[in-house]
Amino acid sequence: MKLTILGCYAATPRALTNPTAQVLEIKNHMFLIDCGEGTQVQLRKHKIKFSRINHIFISHLHGDHFFGLPGLISTFRLLGRDKEMHVYGPKGIKEAITLLLKLGDSWTNYHLYFHELTSKESELIYEDEKVSVRTIPLEHRIYTNGYLFKEKLGERKLDIAAVEKYGINKAYYRNIKLGKDAVSSTGEVVPNEKISTDPQKPKSYAFCSDTVYKPTIVPLIKNVDVLYHEATFLDSEAALAVKTKHSTAKEAATIAKSAEVETLILGHYSTRYKSISLFKEEAQTLFPYVELAEDGKTFQF
Amino acid sequence: MKLTILGCYAATPRALTNPTAQVLEIKNHMFLIDCGEGTQVQLRKHKIKFSRINHIFISHLHGDHFFGLPGLISTFRLLGRDKEMHVYGPKGIKEAITLLLKLGDSWTNYHLYFHELTSKESELIYEDEKVSVRTIPLEHRIYTNGYLFKEKLGERKLDIAAVEKYGINKAYYRNIKLGKDAVSSTGEVVPNEKISTDPQKPKSYAFCSDTVYKPTIVPLIKNVDVLYHEATFLDSEAALAVKTKHSTAKEAATIAKSAEVETLILGHYSTRYKSISLFKEEAQTLFPYVELAEDGKTFQF
Repeated sequence: MKLTILGCYAATPRALTNPTAQVLEIKNHMFLIDCGEGTQVQLRKHKIKFSRINHIFISHLHGDHFFGLPGLISTFRLLGRDKEMHVYGPKGIKEAITLLLKLGDSWTNYHLYFHELTSKESELIYEDEKVSVRTIPLEHRIYTNGYLFKEKLGERKLDIAAVEKYGINKAYYRNIKLGKDAVSSTGEVVPNEKISTDPQKPKSYAFCSDTVYKPTIVPLIKNVDVLYHEATFLDSEAALAVKTKHSTAKEAATIAKSAEVETLILGHYSTRYKSISLFKEEAQTLFPYVELAEDGKTFQF
Repeated sequence: MKLTILGCYAATPRALTNPTAQVLEIKNHMFLIDCGEGTQVQLRKHKIKFSRINHIFISHLHGDHFFGLPGLISTFRLLGRDKEMHVYGPKGIKEAITLLLKLGDSWTNYHLYFHELTSKESELIYEDEKVSVRTIPLEHRIYTNGYLFKEKLGERKLDIAAVEKYGINKAYYRNIKLGKDAVSSTGEVVPNEKISTDPQKPKSYAFCSDTVYKPTIVPLIKNVDVLYHEATFLDSEAALAVKTKHSTAKEAATIAKSAEVETLILGHYSTRYKSISLFKEEAQTLFPYVELAEDGKTFQF
C-alpha cells in the first residue's frame, strides 16, 4: 500500500502549498482521493501515470477538494483515454461536471460514471476480489464522506517444506491455498494448518477530511493501519474549529487513540501557522505514532 | 499599459506551462483576461494584488480558459473581499459558477455580477471616463470573443512656458486642458493650440484567442498598439488548425500585417513543439514586429 500526498493544505492553492488530493496504490489499483485545483499538475510533477487511475473519490464539494476535477476529466479526454472512469462523490457532482462539459461542448470519449452519495450511514461503494471501499460519514459544513479502503484477506501461503515432507501431489496446491486439507502420499489426510501459513494481514487506510471532531466514526475505523485525519487547526483555535466544522491536531490524535490505529497522518493544515511541526507536537501529547502529510511525500505501508 | 502573461499554453496545464490567463494594467485598472486552472497561483507567484482586480473577461468556456475561475471567485471570498466583481463571458458562465457555489454552500460575501454575452457582432461592454472594452467576435469550436481594450484620449497638456509668456490667469488652466482658448493679461484671446500640446496617443490592446484564421476581425483591430493573437500551430499543421479552429503563426502574422498593428504577441502554443522560437521565426517571414508570450513575462507599452 503506497500513499502519495499531492496536496494537503486547507482553503486556497498557493505557490508552495496545494489543496487536498492524494493517490492510494493498493492491490494494483490507483485510487485518486479528492481533487483540488492543480491536481493534474501535481500528478505530472510526481510522475503518476494518469491512465492507471480508474476510480476517483471526492469527499465533498468545497473547491479545495473538487475544483481540479473538471480539468482532470477534460485532460483524460485530450490524452485519448478510452477506459471507463468512475467518480464517487456527493449528489450534485454529476450535474456540475456535466454542465461544464456541455458548456465547453467537450464530452468525454470514454465512459464516465458518477456514483452519487446521499446516505448518512456508512455504505459499501466499491468491491472487487481484492479491495473494498466504504464511506465514512463525516460532519462538515456540507455533506461529506471520508473513505475506508480495505484489502481483503489473501490466499493462505503454501508451506513448501511441509507439503514435500508429506509428499503431497501438486494437484492439491490450489485448494491448500484456499484453506482446504490435502492427502499425503501415504493416503493420510493432512490438515490445512500443517501445510500452509496465514496470509499477510490485509492493510487498511481511512481518509477523513473534512470534519469536525466526530467520535462516532471510531468503530468504523477501528484498528486501521493508517488513518489520515484532518487537523486544520491547533488546540489554540479550538473554538474556530468548532465554528468552521474542522478538527484540531489534538482531536485527530484523540480519534486515532480511541480507534487504536497503527499510524496517524495529519493534514489539511491552515496556512496561518508558521510550521506544520506544531501539529505533530500537539498530537503526540496524546498519541505517539504521528506522521505529517506534506505535498509530494509518499508513505509505504 | 502593462501586460502580464500568467499562462499562454494550449490545452492542459503542466508542471512548467500554464493555460491562458493574463492581466492588463491600463489607466489604473487591472483587468484579468481568461482564467485557466491555476490562475490564482500564478497571480500569487507574480505578486499581483488580487484586490485590484474588479473585472474579469472570459473568452470562451473551454477549460483551459475558464477552469480557474470558480477557485479564484472562492478565494476572493476567503480573502474577505467586499468590492463588487464583474465577470464578462459567454452565456452559461453564470449558471456554471452559481451551481458550483451552491453545491459548496459558499456564496460570495461580495457582489458578483455576470455580464453574459451572446452577440455575434462587436459590442461595447465596458466604458468609463478613461477606458472602453469591446468584444471581438471570434470563430472557434464554441462561442468565443476576443476583447479590445482602448484608452480614451486624455486631456491636452498645458504648455507652461506659453501660458506664462501670455500671462494667463491660473483660473483658465482647467479649460485649456479641455481644449478651450484663454485670455492673456493684455485682454487678448489666445487660441488653445498656442498654449497646450496634444495629449498622449491613447493605447489599445486586442486579445484574440481562440480562433480560426478570421480576416473579418481586421477592421475592428486596425492600428492597435498590441495584438495578442493565438498561434496554436505552425504552418506545417495548417490542416489541423482548420479542423480544430485554431490559427497558425503565419495566419496570426497575416492578421497583424493587414491590421497594421504596432506589435504582435503570439501565444496559446501547442506543447507539441520543441521550441516556441519556431513560432516567432514563422511569423516574422510575414511581419517583423513579433514578440513571444511566455508565462510570467511582462510587456510595457
